[in-house]
Amino acid sequence: MSLNLQTYTEHFTNPLYLESGRILEPYDITYETYGTLNDDKSNVVVVCHALTGSHHAAGVYENETKAGWWDGLIGSKKAIDTDKYFVICSNVIGSCFGSTGPMSMQHPHLEPYRYKFPVVTVKDMVKAQRILFDRLDIHRVHAIVGGSMGGMQALQFAVHYPNFANKIIALATTYATQPWAIAFNKVAQESILNDPDFKQGYYDPDILKEQGLSGMAVGRMAGHISFLSHESMRTKFGRDYKLTDGLYELFGKFQVESYLEYNGYNFTKWFDPLAYLYITKAINIYDLARGFDSLAESLKRINADLHLISFKNDLLFKNFEMQEIADELKKNGNKNYSYIDIDSDYGHDAFLVELEKFDNYVKDALNG
Amino acid sequence: MSLNLQTYTEHFTNPLYLESGRILEPYDITYETYGTLNDDKSNVVVVCHALTGSHHAAGVYENETKAGWWDGLIGSKKAIDTDKYFVICSNVIGSCFGSTGPMSMQHPHLEPYRYKFPVVTVKDMVKAQRILFDRLDIHRVHAIVGGSMGGMQALQFAVHYPNFANKIIALATTYATQPWAIAFNKVAQESILNDPDFKQGYYDPDILKEQGLSGMAVGRMAGHISFLSHESMRTKFGRDYKLTDGLYELFGKFQVESYLEYNGYNFTKWFDPLAYLYITKAINIYDLARGFDSLAESLKRINADLHLISFKNDLLFKNFEMQEIADELKKNGNKNYSYIDIDSDYGHDAFLVELEKFDNYVKDALNG
Repeated sequence: MSLNLQTYTEHFTNPLYLESGRILEPYDITYETYGTLNDDKSNVVVVCHALTGSHHAAGVYENETKAGWWDGLIGSKKAIDTDKYFVICSNVIGSCFGSTGPMSMQHPHLEPYRYKFPVVTVKDMVKAQRILFDRLDIHRVHAIVGGSMGGMQALQFAVHYPNFANKIIALATTYATQPWAIAFNKVAQESILNDPDFKQGYYDPDILKEQGLSGMAVGRMAGHISFLSHESMRTKFGRDYKLTDGLYELFGKFQVESYLEYNGYNFTKWFDPLAYLYITKAINIYDLARGFDSLAESLKRINADLHLISFKNDLLFKNFEMQEIADELKKNGNKNYSYIDIDSDYGHDAFLVELEKFDNYVKDALNG
Repeated sequence: MSLNLQTYTEHFTNPLYLESGRILEPYDITYETYGTLNDDKSNVVVVCHALTGSHHAAGVYENETKAGWWDGLIGSKKAIDTDKYFVICSNVIGSCFGSTGPMSMQHPHLEPYRYKFPVVTVKDMVKAQRILFDRLDIHRVHAIVGGSMGGMQALQFAVHYPNFANKIIALATTYATQPWAIAFNKVAQESILNDPDFKQGYYDPDILKEQGLSGMAVGRMAGHISFLSHESMRTKFGRDYKLTDGLYELFGKFQVESYLEYNGYNFTKWFDPLAYLYITKAINIYDLARGFDSLAESLKRINADLHLISFKNDLLFKNFEMQEIADELKKNGNKNYSYIDIDSDYGHDAFLVELEKFDNYVKDALNG
């Protein structure tokens, strides 16, 4: 069966009340769907994206070659089987792929918000999606699945909309962002802010994409370290040199340097720096327990079946963070959760690249 | 007994033949001594400093409050006991605290070398020290001790001057810099190179120290992540906010952000960016096995008693790197080595801050 990829943008004129007390109004949400909604609307699977992801989670657009970011997981006969499920993935507010973010026009002006854009939180991102689903007349879903910041969203859905999803599957994520993740984000934020081409937020986005914002490239390089692991770096790069003209250069460039350069500078061609600042802020201030007396109290709200998946060598969201959620659930007497720690050398990137290590778990969790 | 701190600078007019094939000529080496040289010159302990360290390893200068970087380890009745040993610590060539580096004047011109400074290696740093000791009429020493890049120097001494030291003590270091360490250095290098105030190396050092080179600050922030560990960051910072006017700010600044900012920007006031580029390059290309068929072959050259100390949660030089040296020594049938892995939460910084965890080992290794 075909993937039946559809892309839409919904426009909302009602105010979105944000956690900060501020209002976003009006706003757009761009989203993508795969598969077919069944008659009783019982086959919806929501997929949530990570920091620099988008609504384009699966399939390949016409005239493009690169597939969506979880294409290996979503599709006909895949773990999230589009023959069976109707999958929805939306671009989070604050991002830069169609949903309203800092470079969107600030109504009624024809100028971008830039720093006037309000701070958004992961809870706000989830709330906006909940309103989108209302619009689509979907009031309960089969499952919500996400990794990294997508996993944060899945957990926020579980806590704040406890009767909305039957199942929650959260990968490579945490209950509250820990200092090492904040530290990596800090490097990127400072690097962007200090770049004179960033013009204190008053850059021309077209020129910036053309020339590449080196400050964001450097920040992204730091990010890439946190996405890898010592093991994967050793396997992938070792101390190999990048070959130039067939020569082994004694004092030349290492493969790992070349990898960071390529990924760092290339990133600036497709992501917006203000969106990067706003989303990393959202990640930093993410705390499932905010508004509750404790993490335990927040987790008590969860009614869905909860499936937690961590990766052993993840440097960004350490596996013990997921273990801590599982421990709290156990103490709470929750019987409807599972936790597995996947033995992978890939580090944080595993949730995007080593699908064969966990796709069966996702499949079983969805179908079980 | 007094520490007997003395600071000197020696000037050398003979050329220093570098590993790259280039020549450094003339050059200076600034060094410090503690304790008193005994009559038969049998009580010399050489201490080697890390990336941003200097010859000032112990004691407090007049009118200053901050002690040398290993003051807790070096002194009367301390692990490196200056009542007994005559300690020498020299600033490496390529650095910026008195020894010749990229901002030194390029003789006979009255202009700094800047990029005309040759690439130096850890082996070159060691060679220059060996020549300094010759000048001081010291042809054999009791021990060489160092951590991080200081440990690299200690190991290079052991391999290239096998009859020079009785004992080698190397902490928190490696036999060849691995891709994760190169990756952290890459972030710092790119960040410095991209900063317009760096002026492609043609900056005014006084102005730069005054205003602070933000590109180097950001690079140093990334460095600080690698010096810490997940455990130490959790203990030290958690998700605590920096208090401002006594208010707990919901969306304010995290302690970890404040720590990185302070250390990053402050660093630019006391370290030179070109020196940072040259020394990180030296670290990246450090490989004990260069010039040998294998690491095993290079290690076979060692005659000294070798003591290896790693730290369990070191993110920069992983404990398994030291284990690999120990494994090779064992395979080689070497009987004169010891290896211990210290249980510390401090990460790489442990060799500078958690002295009580290893000072007895250093003491025993020196005296045993």
